[in-house]
Amino acid sequence: MESFNFELLKKSAEGKARLGVINTRRGKIHTPAFMPVGTQATVKTLTPEEVEGLGAEIILSNTYHLYLRPGQGIVREAGGLHRFMNWRRPILTDSGGFQVFSLSSLRQITDEGVYFRSHVDGSRHFIGPEQSMEIQAALGSDIAMAFDQCSPYPCSYEDTLAGLERTTRWAERCLHAPHAPGQAVFGIVQGGVYPELRARSAAQITALDFPGYAIGGLSVGEPKAMMYENLELTTPLLPESKPRYLMGVGSADCLWEGVERGIDMFDCVLPTRVARNGTALTWEGKLVVRNARYARDFSPLEAGCGCYTCRNYTRAYLRHLFNAAELLGHRLLTIHNLYFTLSVMERIRRSIEDGRFQEEKDAFFRRYSA
Amino acid sequence: MESFNFELLKKSAEGKARLGVINTRRGKIHTPAFMPVGTQATVKTLTPEEVEGLGAEIILSNTYHLYLRPGQGIVREAGGLHRFMNWRRPILTDSGGFQVFSLSSLRQITDEGVYFRSHVDGSRHFIGPEQSMEIQAALGSDIAMAFDQCSPYPCSYEDTLAGLERTTRWAERCLHAPHAPGQAVFGIVQGGVYPELRARSAAQITALDFPGYAIGGLSVGEPKAMMYENLELTTPLLPESKPRYLMGVGSADCLWEGVERGIDMFDCVLPTRVARNGTALTWEGKLVVRNARYARDFSPLEAGCGCYTCRNYTRAYLRHLFNAAELLGHRLLTIHNLYFTLSVMERIRRSIEDGRFQEEKDAFFRRYSA
Repeated sequence: MESFNFELLKKSAEGKARLGVINTRRGKIHTPAFMPVGTQATVKTLTPEEVEGLGAEIILSNTYHLYLRPGQGIVREAGGLHRFMNWRRPILTDSGGFQVFSLSSLRQITDEGVYFRSHVDGSRHFIGPEQSMEIQAALGSDIAMAFDQCSPYPCSYEDTLAGLERTTRWAERCLHAPHAPGQAVFGIVQGGVYPELRARSAAQITALDFPGYAIGGLSVGEPKAMMYENLELTTPLLPESKPRYLMGVGSADCLWEGVERGIDMFDCVLPTRVARNGTALTWEGKLVVRNARYARDFSPLEAGCGCYTCRNYTRAYLRHLFNAAELLGHRLLTIHNLYFTLSVMERIRRSIEDGRFQEEKDAFFRRYSA
Repeated sequence: MESFNFELLKKSAEGKARLGVINTRRGKIHTPAFMPVGTQATVKTLTPEEVEGLGAEIILSNTYHLYLRPGQGIVREAGGLHRFMNWRRPILTDSGGFQVFSLSSLRQITDEGVYFRSHVDGSRHFIGPEQSMEIQAALGSDIAMAFDQCSPYPCSYEDTLAGLERTTRWAERCLHAPHAPGQAVFGIVQGGVYPELRARSAAQITALDFPGYAIGGLSVGEPKAMMYENLELTTPLLPESKPRYLMGVGSADCLWEGVERGIDMFDCVLPTRVARNGTALTWEGKLVVRNARYARDFSPLEAGCGCYTCRNYTRAYLRHLFNAAELLGHRLLTIHNLYFTLSVMERIRRSIEDGRFQEEKDAFFRRYSA
């Protein structure tokens, strides 16, 4: 995997926060990094040029969704996901495992893989580790994820144990399955909220030589304190020299807390999803722009924000767009929310570089209310 | 109205096609011109910079919609419609008359004006000529339209006559009502599909000194041949020195036919509306990109098209976006359809300039199927 490597540039004085860079064939990813989600080969409402302009260096796309629609065959024929969707920087594809468990119906899980019905049309499908790697190879992502079994919260100790053991067996099969040229495969640590099982999974997964490791099965319904506690236990068990990815987490507070516990990569639908309903993410917390109090508010979503939306539009106009069900509102809030989230990430990186992570984190939380 | 004037630059050798320019405080409008429609203070899915980048020099926005939502008071407080929506070039507002008749319910029409119920929430409202001008003054459009009574097709001779006579009485009141500074008001010729009534309305309306004249009540259900016939009779009755605006018409074939009959301005929701369902307008005619035949078609919507969509995306990708209900599809087709319509308009202008209008029109129709 010569084309893929991780450089650890600096660590925070206080703790485990890391500054680094991931080099890929399609460009650098400065870490800690936030990955906007482009579930169906599009970051909702935005062009790739806009997403890049907002500062994103990598996006995530979903194997499960693209497998069902349009199908990986069409994406491969198009020349891969990058060409299909016109995004030239790195793409990480998830394994499809989480979506199979959370979105599909009538699941039957065996060591072979998972039988399920499509959430789109009810049709029957099967995905196991080999199929997941084959789909991701067809998509041609830069980082592919090993096919895993996520234990939803709450989940019994026994079921969590069985899930992590199966995840390890699948990880091994994924590692040995064919990949796309230059494609890095990350292993995923499971173990639910059981410290012992987290340690067990981490030991098993890191025994396999993946170029990066993810922590899965957090932010799946458990209290945040429990997530932080498990993170705190798990990241020290991952090798220093490899990037660490906390899956499905991306609210501003979690970015700071995750980085403090040694995480390098994040993804989350939050910024793009809440934009649809007119919720803006700001340095003070959430702002629901549809609120009647903004009807005559001619100030931007957030004073001083440098995003296109805040430079050109008022809360009153944005509220009007949502009241009138105009899609431009969804788009303008998506721009703001991604800009905000990527700006938080940038501030985090600079604070590590400047040796001021703890001060900046404290300053952030003095202003922010989740 | 020093700030507003029309220069007639050239006429086609064969007939009545005109090349001109409308000068306004907010910039020039090269005619014949197509105006994209931004009904609710937004050209659906696009930013104003994108609309301008597509070549639009003026947009239309709807008085009826903005009166109901967000209300002209909010727009005025925002500094007018231009600032509210971030569009710096000219805006034409319609009078609200057509929408009151076509969208609202429980209408009662008197010489005073129209009592109606909102299509949004059923609330009761009244708009007459003075109210329409007051709303348009608050919006601060560059061109305001006189409040008129449109006769839908089919409509009896007697009702059409009554409607046009009322339109004339209203036009006079609109002309004398206060306007926004620099705002030009256009009169509207009615008369349905009755040549005699068209002549009567044209005589009455042009007797009033408006800086521009519109032809209303066409493209409201009558056959196209009937529309062309009425246009042919009506435009010679309008003064040479003023711009002529054919309301609500904008399919590519109608642009050529309208210009041939002396029209200078057009507006139509067609390009933006059909984009929503994945219909692309092309030089060959319509293309329904959702069609299964495009699933593996990796060519652009239209070969040789210079729009952002055609330069970067395939039919297969666009089809995927529509199948997956992704808003980017709507946006990319809006871009293409406006680019196409504005390109047709540009070709028409160049053909008049080059003295080749008839040849270019014939060439257009050899390729195009409506």
